Amino acid sequence: MRVLGLDPGLRVTGWGIVDAEGSRLRHVADGVIKSDDRLTLAERLTQLHRGVLDVIAQWTPEEAAVEETFVNKNPESTLKLGQARGAVLLAPALSGLTVGEYAPASVKQAVVGTGRAAKEQVGMMVRTLLPGCLVKSPDAADALAVAICHAHHLNTARRLARAVVS
Amino acid sequence: MRVLGLDPGLRVTGWGIVDAEGSRLRHVADGVIKSDDRLTLAERLTQLHRGVLDVIAQWTPEEAAVEETFVNKNPESTLKLGQARGAVLLAPALSGLTVGEYAPASVKQAVVGTGRAAKEQVGMMVRTLLPGCLVKSPDAADALAVAICHAHHLNTARRLARAVVS
Repeated sequence: MRVLGLDPGLRVTGWGIVDAEGSRLRHVADGVIKSDDRLTLAERLTQLHRGVLDVIAQWTPEEAAVEETFVNKNPESTLKLGQARGAVLLAPALSGLTVGEYAPASVKQAVVGTGRAAKEQVGMMVRTLLPGCLVKSPDAADALAVAICHAHHLNTARRLARAVVS
Repeated sequence: MRVLGLDPGLRVTGWGIVDAEGSRLRHVADGVIKSDDRLTLAERLTQLHRGVLDVIAQWTPEEAAVEETFVNKNPESTLKLGQARGAVLLAPALSGLTVGEYAPASVKQAVVGTGRAAKEQVGMMVRTLLPGCLVKSPDAADALAVAICHAHHLNTARRLARAVVS
């Protein structure tokens, strides 16, 4: 199962691809998509959306996941993030992938083992769980963390289903 | 010049199409696109986006416009609106249309003649400026108001350009 994790942002959107075989994980690729802040909002959203479509076309994930957004106190920032999130989420949805959504605490729980981990711990654990992966940016690390969380979730759901059948 | 106006919302997105010939306006069509709140966020955004793409395919506008969003005090609502706005804006942008953005006061100024008009006045003036148009919903009326504002703006810009040349 190949999972695409996304960390949407209007300026920078992080992405990460993980292969999961049962509970075994393998790092495939990660990166960031940037939008040019000299362009109009509609053009920037188009850049982000097309960037994610390119990632999907190149790496052919079967599932996608995104972190539920932390609502910022600044309403302007929240609106910007929301718009970026809409444009980014739409890429896997239009490509026919289901898009899992996870609370930040669930992502931390899946990656670090506690829902109250610091941001740096998440990045460190991503590198530990995905040996050989040299994550270049914190946004890509967050995207890989969501992909790991979704892979765990799918694996648990599959094992539960098997336990119910047998 | 055929203009598409959009009033994005996660539950209901209003749209309206206006033909402009110089300062003359003609109502072409209007309506709303609803998303099913039993679906996931990604599925709802897909419904809205596909709905706008259908409107564009059917009515072939040459320009699009949207109102700059009033930032809500409730951050959850602002995030929802932002996500809907991203998905909706992306439809004309991906279709190659430029998307104008106007402050709410500019839309009121263009339609009612004052930036401080009440919502009901906007709806009433839309019906007056577009004779024969029976707008069914307030969201569609708001979308038509943005289309009228964009048409005015294009017309003024054209006349200014002509004045500079001659």
